[in-house]
Amino acid sequence: MAVYTEVDDAELIDFVSTYDIGALLSCKGIAEGVENSNFYLQTRAGGFILTLYEKRVRETDLPFFLNLMQHLSARGLNCPQPVKNRNGDALGRLSGRPAAIVSFLEGYSIHHPEPVHCAELGVALARLHLAGGDFPMTRPNRLSVNDWRPLFAPYAERADGLEQGLRALIESELSLLERIWPRDLPGGVIHADLFPDNVFFLGERISGLIDFYFACTDALAYDLAICLNAWCFGPDHVYRRDCGTALLMAYRQLRPMSKDEILAFPILARGAAMRFLLTRFVDSINVPPGALVRPKDPMEYLSKLRFHREIVAIDGYGLS
Amino acid sequence: MAVYTEVDDAELIDFVSTYDIGALLSCKGIAEGVENSNFYLQTRAGGFILTLYEKRVRETDLPFFLNLMQHLSARGLNCPQPVKNRNGDALGRLSGRPAAIVSFLEGYSIHHPEPVHCAELGVALARLHLAGGDFPMTRPNRLSVNDWRPLFAPYAERADGLEQGLRALIESELSLLERIWPRDLPGGVIHADLFPDNVFFLGERISGLIDFYFACTDALAYDLAICLNAWCFGPDHVYRRDCGTALLMAYRQLRPMSKDEILAFPILARGAAMRFLLTRFVDSINVPPGALVRPKDPMEYLSKLRFHREIVAIDGYGLS
Repeated sequence: MAVYTEVDDAELIDFVSTYDIGALLSCKGIAEGVENSNFYLQTRAGGFILTLYEKRVRETDLPFFLNLMQHLSARGLNCPQPVKNRNGDALGRLSGRPAAIVSFLEGYSIHHPEPVHCAELGVALARLHLAGGDFPMTRPNRLSVNDWRPLFAPYAERADGLEQGLRALIESELSLLERIWPRDLPGGVIHADLFPDNVFFLGERISGLIDFYFACTDALAYDLAICLNAWCFGPDHVYRRDCGTALLMAYRQLRPMSKDEILAFPILARGAAMRFLLTRFVDSINVPPGALVRPKDPMEYLSKLRFHREIVAIDGYGLS
Repeated sequence: MAVYTEVDDAELIDFVSTYDIGALLSCKGIAEGVENSNFYLQTRAGGFILTLYEKRVRETDLPFFLNLMQHLSARGLNCPQPVKNRNGDALGRLSGRPAAIVSFLEGYSIHHPEPVHCAELGVALARLHLAGGDFPMTRPNRLSVNDWRPLFAPYAERADGLEQGLRALIESELSLLERIWPRDLPGGVIHADLFPDNVFFLGERISGLIDFYFACTDALAYDLAICLNAWCFGPDHVYRRDCGTALLMAYRQLRPMSKDEILAFPILARGAAMRFLLTRFVDSINVPPGALVRPKDPMEYLSKLRFHREIVAIDGYGLS
C-alpha cells in the first residue's frame, strides 16, 4: 500500500484535461500497490485508477507493462486497461513522474483464500499465460535466480539478526538453486506477483487481476509456484494441501503442464519462496522514509522455503 | 492520511449487508483523515466512505459527530451524511472498531488557496456556524487553552531540540494566553479543523466539508482564526493579506462579528497557532508505529505564532 507522491490539484486538473474523460470530480490516494503511488480518480466519465510511477519502476519498462495490459484486455482478460490521452499516448507525466490512467476494476481482495478461490486463481493464471502467448514484447525477470545473490550480498551480515544461522541457510540454498535451476521450461509472459492483494473477487468469482509491474518473460510454471506460495498456506504459514490441489488442478486443466514443468515444480517453489524471502528481508532493512508502507514479514517466506525443502515431487503438493 | 486497520473481506461483506446499499463491489483504503481509517466503498447503490474509528477518537463522542453531520446535511450543508443500517443505527462495528458509512462527496482539495477560495471558505464557515445554531448536543473542546499546558508539559524538555529557546517561548506565551483568553464570545458548533484537506472544491466552488472529528462547542470566531491560520499563509509561511481579507470579509457578510469577537481576534489567532504548534510538536514525537502517517511540520505554526504576536488589532489581517 502506498502513496509516495502528493498531487497538486491544479496540476491534476491540467493532466486530466489531456484525456477525453470529462472534468475531475474527485481524487483520493489509495492504499494499493507497493511500488507506485495510486489514486482513485473520479471524473464525469466514471471511476479510474491514476498511477504515478516511482523511482523503483524503470521508465523504460513502462511501455511493456502498459502494452501488456492493453494486450490482455483485448483478449478478454479482466485487467486494468490503459486510457489513452488525446495524443494517443497511454503514458503521461504528472508531479514530475511518469503517470498513467487505467480503468477501474470492481472487486475486492480475498484475505483467507479457500480452495474455491484457489481454483478460480488457477483458471485465471492459465488464461493469463495463454492470452500472453502472442504478446510481442519481452522483459527479463530481474528478480530471478541470478539476481538473488547480488541482492542478498550487501545485507548478508544482518541475516543472522533475524534468525541465528539464516545467512548460512540462504547461502547454501542459493548455491543449490543456482546449480539446479531449470532454465529451459516453457516460457512467456508471467505476472510474477499474483498475491491475493492483486486479485479481485466478486463473491467466489474473480473479477480482475491488477498490478502488472513485476510482469516479465520467464518460465510459466514459476508463476504458478509464486501463486502456490502466496495462496496455499494458512495464516499459520502451514501448507494447505486442499488449496494447493485446487490451484494446480484448475491450472492444469486449461494449460496442461509438461513433464519437465512437473519435475521442476518443487525447485520452482523453493526459488519462489527464496525470491520473496530475499526481497522482504532487504525491504525490511530499507523502508524508504515517508513511504507510508508497512514492510512485510520475511520470516513467513523462510517458513515456506523450509516446507519446500522437504518436498521432492509435485505430488507432495497434493497433485495426484 | 491514514489506514490504520486492515479490513477482512468476509467481515466487510457481512457489515455491508446490514445496510440497504446493495452488495459490495469494491473497498480501497484511502489516504484521508488523520485520526481514523478511511475506505472508499463501492456498492450496487454507489460510492460511500467507510470510516473505522481508531483509539484516538472517544467512542462516546461518536454520536455527537454523526448527529452533527446529519443535522448539517438536513440544513443543506454539503457534508458527509451518515447512512443508517437496517436497525436505524448510524454506528456499527467492524474489525473490532466502531464504524460508520457516510455519503461520498465529490470534489478535491485545493493545495494553494487563492483569495477566491478563501472567500468561498468564509461563506461555508459562516453557513456552518449558522446551521449549527440549533444543534442540540454539545461537546467540550478538549484542545482549548486550558488543555495546552498539560499537553506540552510531558515533552517540554524536548522543545529546545526543535529550536533553541522554544520551550521558554511556548511557556511564556501559554501564560499570556491563559490570562487573557476571551471566554465569553458567541459560541456554538465549530469544525475546529477546517484545513484545505477537509474542504472539497469543484472548480472555484466549495462542494463539501469533511472530517468533523474535532468538531466541538466553542467560540465561533476561534474557528475563523483556525481557518485564517490554515488558509491565509503562503507555502513560505508568509501571511497573505489578500487571502485573509477575502476570508474575513466573506465570513462577516453572512455572520456579522460582534465587537468582542473583532477585538479578541488577534488573540484567538495566536491561540489557534499555539494549538497546532503544540499538537504537531507532540505528534512529531509520538508517531504511532505502523500508522502510515507523515507527521506535519510544527515549525510552520511557530512561524505563524510569531506573526500573530506582532498583530494588535484585526485590521492587521487586512480587514478594514
